[in-house]
Amino acid sequence: MISKNKRFFLPESEIPTHWYNIQADMKKKPMPPLHPGTKQPLKPEDLYPIFAEELSRQELNQTDQWIEIPEEVREMYKYYRSTPLVRAYGLEKALETPAHIYFKNESVSPVGSHKLNSAIAQAYYCKKEGVTNVTTETGAGQWGAALSYAAKVFGLEAAVYQVKISYEQKPYRRSIMQTFGAQVTASPSMSTRAGKDILTKNPNYQGSLGTAISEAIELARTTPNCKYTLGSVLSHVTLHQTVIGLEAEKQMALAGEYPDMIIACFGGGSNFGGIAFPFMRHTILEGKKTRYIAAEPASCPKLTRGQFQYDFGDEAGYTPLLPMFTLGHNFAPANIHAGGLRYHGAGVIVSQLLKDGYMEAVDIKQLDSFKAGCLFAQAEGIIPAPESCHAIAATISEALKCKENDEEKVILFNLSGHGLIDMASYDQYLSGNLVNYELNESDIQKNIDQLEKII
Amino acid sequence: MISKNKRFFLPESEIPTHWYNIQADMKKKPMPPLHPGTKQPLKPEDLYPIFAEELSRQELNQTDQWIEIPEEVREMYKYYRSTPLVRAYGLEKALETPAHIYFKNESVSPVGSHKLNSAIAQAYYCKKEGVTNVTTETGAGQWGAALSYAAKVFGLEAAVYQVKISYEQKPYRRSIMQTFGAQVTASPSMSTRAGKDILTKNPNYQGSLGTAISEAIELARTTPNCKYTLGSVLSHVTLHQTVIGLEAEKQMALAGEYPDMIIACFGGGSNFGGIAFPFMRHTILEGKKTRYIAAEPASCPKLTRGQFQYDFGDEAGYTPLLPMFTLGHNFAPANIHAGGLRYHGAGVIVSQLLKDGYMEAVDIKQLDSFKAGCLFAQAEGIIPAPESCHAIAATISEALKCKENDEEKVILFNLSGHGLIDMASYDQYLSGNLVNYELNESDIQKNIDQLEKII
Repeated sequence: MISKNKRFFLPESEIPTHWYNIQADMKKKPMPPLHPGTKQPLKPEDLYPIFAEELSRQELNQTDQWIEIPEEVREMYKYYRSTPLVRAYGLEKALETPAHIYFKNESVSPVGSHKLNSAIAQAYYCKKEGVTNVTTETGAGQWGAALSYAAKVFGLEAAVYQVKISYEQKPYRRSIMQTFGAQVTASPSMSTRAGKDILTKNPNYQGSLGTAISEAIELARTTPNCKYTLGSVLSHVTLHQTVIGLEAEKQMALAGEYPDMIIACFGGGSNFGGIAFPFMRHTILEGKKTRYIAAEPASCPKLTRGQFQYDFGDEAGYTPLLPMFTLGHNFAPANIHAGGLRYHGAGVIVSQLLKDGYMEAVDIKQLDSFKAGCLFAQAEGIIPAPESCHAIAATISEALKCKENDEEKVILFNLSGHGLIDMASYDQYLSGNLVNYELNESDIQKNIDQLEKII
Repeated sequence: MISKNKRFFLPESEIPTHWYNIQADMKKKPMPPLHPGTKQPLKPEDLYPIFAEELSRQELNQTDQWIEIPEEVREMYKYYRSTPLVRAYGLEKALETPAHIYFKNESVSPVGSHKLNSAIAQAYYCKKEGVTNVTTETGAGQWGAALSYAAKVFGLEAAVYQVKISYEQKPYRRSIMQTFGAQVTASPSMSTRAGKDILTKNPNYQGSLGTAISEAIELARTTPNCKYTLGSVLSHVTLHQTVIGLEAEKQMALAGEYPDMIIACFGGGSNFGGIAFPFMRHTILEGKKTRYIAAEPASCPKLTRGQFQYDFGDEAGYTPLLPMFTLGHNFAPANIHAGGLRYHGAGVIVSQLLKDGYMEAVDIKQLDSFKAGCLFAQAEGIIPAPESCHAIAATISEALKCKENDEEKVILFNLSGHGLIDMASYDQYLSGNLVNYELNESDIQKNIDQLEKII
C-alpha cells in the first residue's frame, strides 16, 4: 500500500551496517587500473603511498559483496543519517504529472551534501592507520567542506586544494572549510610542481579538478605521515556512498513503492553510484527492470560524448591509468557553476556499467539546470546545489513524459546537496547573465586522440 | 532510562495538532496593547486593517489554552517536521562537561530556520481570507526567506523590506527570496513616507527592524488586498512557534530526560517562546523547576538593560503601543552580524514573564558569540546562524558551570537556524576583523526617557 506520508526515516537501528560492493556482483568486472609507470595491473600495495591501506584494498576489491562499516563511522553517521526520503508532492503538483516523485535529501547532512558519507570513512581509516595529515582537492567545495569537518572529528589536519574558479566564485565554501579548521589553497598554485608547470604554461588557467588532484597527490607524497583523499571517481568512494541507496531501498519500502527510474547528477559518479548501485543489484541478480539515469552537464559530457579508454585521473598524470569514459585528462571544462561536475572522466565501475548497457546518461544545459532548480525551490522550498539541479532537470523531463503518456511511474532522484553557498549562481541566472556553453567538437576530439598514445 | 540515540524524531502522526497559548495559563496576564491614537485597549477589529482577522484574534486571545493548527498548515509542517532533537555528544566532549546537552535543530527547515513555522500559518490565514499580497520586514533575511516561500506555496505575492545593513552584508538572502519569487527592497527606502522621512534626516542610516516594519505596514495600508505579516515579537507569531517546544517535549521523553535549563537566543522572542513556553506550562501549572534563559546581544540588551514600558513596535509609530521591555523605538542598534536580534523591544508575553521572574536573560558579546559558534561547528559539523550563536554561547557557559560543580544537568537549546548565508561574518571573525560594540549608556537613557512621554 502506498503511504501518504511525506517523509520517511529509518530508526538508528536500521541504518546500514555494511556498504554494498557492486563489483562483486558485476557479471563483467571492471578492467584493472594500471600502474602509470609499468602499465601492469595495479595491486593494493601500489596505492599505499598515497591512500590509507584499507581504502587501497577496498578500491580493488572485486570479491566481497558487503563490506562492514566500522562502528566509529556508523556512530558518526547517526548524527545525520538516515537522511529523509521525501515524496515531492509540491513538484508533482507544479508539473501536473501522474508520476510519483521521491527524492533522497542528502542536503541535510551537517555539511550540506552527501560527501560526508565518504569523508568520515576516509578520515577514520587514515586516523586508524596512524596518519596525522590529510590532503585533497575540491571543486565547488562540497567535498572539501566534508573532509575538513571529518578530519576535525578524528583529530587530523586537513589541507585542501580548491579549483580556482570555484575558490573565487564561491568564497564562502572556503570560509566553511576554514571554520572547520582546514587550510585552503586555490589551485593551480605555486606550492607544487604540478601547479607551477601549469601556471607557467597558462598563467590565467582557472583550474580544474584534474589539476587540483595533481597538486593534492603531490603534497601527500612529499609530506610525512600525510595521505591523499578523494571525493568521487574512485571505487571506494562510491562504495561508501552506497549507504544512500541502501537506506533509500528500505525507505521506498516504507513508502510502499519501488522506483521505475533512479536519477542522479554525475561528476565522477559517487552520488550516482551511491543511490543507484544498491537498487542495481536487483537488476543484475534478479533482472529487475529499473532505469538508471546519470545527468551530466552538456559542457562536460564524458558519458554522452566521451570515449571508453584508459586515462589518467588527473592533469599531471600522477594517478593510475583508469579504464573509463573520458574527455581526456587535459580537457578544460567550461566555467559552469556546477563545479562538482567539472571533471573529465567517470569512475571505472560506472564506465563498465554504461558500456554494458545497465545505465543511461543524459546531458543537461546550464540554463536548463537552473530553470529546473528554481522550479524545485518554489515547489519544495529547498534551494538545490547547481550540481543537483542536473538531476532535477532530468527528473522533470521524465515526469513530463509520464504526463504526456499518462503513466504513473515512480521516479527517485538524489538531491545530493543544497545550493545555499551557490546563491551567486542563482543571482546570475535570475538576472539573465548566465549562458550555456557550447562544446567545441574538435577540442574534444583532440584530447581524445591524445589518449590513444597513452596505452 | 536515558536513550543512547543521537537524534530523536516523531512520526508524522505525533506532530502537534494544536499550538500552545501560554497567555491562557499565565497567572498575571500581559497588559493590553493600546491603540496608538486613542490609547484604549486594543480590540481584534483594530488590527484587521493590517493583519489577517484570525491572526488578529490569536494576538489578543488570553483564554484558549490550545489553538488548533489548520490541516493545510499541518500538511506543510510535515515536509520538515518533526525537526530532529539532537544529543550534542560532540560539544559535550569538546567541553569535557558532565552536562547533557541537547539541541532542537530548526536549521533543517527548507529555508534554514524556525521562521517557516509561522510564515506558513500567516500565509495560510491570509490566503483563506482572500488576501492576494503580503508584505513584511526582514533583518538578516531568515524571516523574509520563510515568508517568500510560504507565500509561493499559497499563491500569494510577497514584498519584503530588508534592513539595509543586512541587505548589503548578506546579499544572498536577497537572492534566496528572489528565487522564491518575492520582491525585495532595502530599508529605509524612498518607496514609503516612513522611509523618506528617515532618509531625509539621516541619508546614511543603515536601517533597523523598527524602520523596516514601518515601511511594510505603510505598504500594506496603501495597497489593496494586501496584509502585513511579522516574523517575531507578536504573540501570534510566538504561538505558532510553540510547535518547536511541543515536539521537543515529546522528543525529550524519547531521550528519557527532562531539561533543567532551556536556552534560546532572543530578538523579538518567537524562537525563545517557541521552545520555552510548552515546558513553562509545567512550571506555571505544576511548579516544575526549570530555568529559561534568553540570550540577547550585549549591543541590543532590552531584556538586561531596557525598561518595562509601553512603546511602539516600529520606528515611525504605526503599531499599537505594546507593554514591553524596550530600549526605545528610536534605538539604533549597532551593526552586529546577528541581524535578527537587532530589535529594540521584546514581545509582551515574554516581557511579562521576565517581570514576574519566570525567566532569566543574559547578554552575549559579538566576539563571544562567534567563538561559541566556531566551537559548535567543529564539534557538531553545523555552522550556526550568528543569532543562534548567542544561544550556544549561553549554553557553553552553563555547561562549563556544570563542569566546575560536577553537576550532570540537562540543557536544551534551540538551534534556530544555520549560518550558511552568513559566512561573510565568519570570515570577518576568523580574520580578526570583528569587534564588540560598546553601548553608550547615555544613549540608552535618552531613548528611554523619551518613552515616558508616550503614555
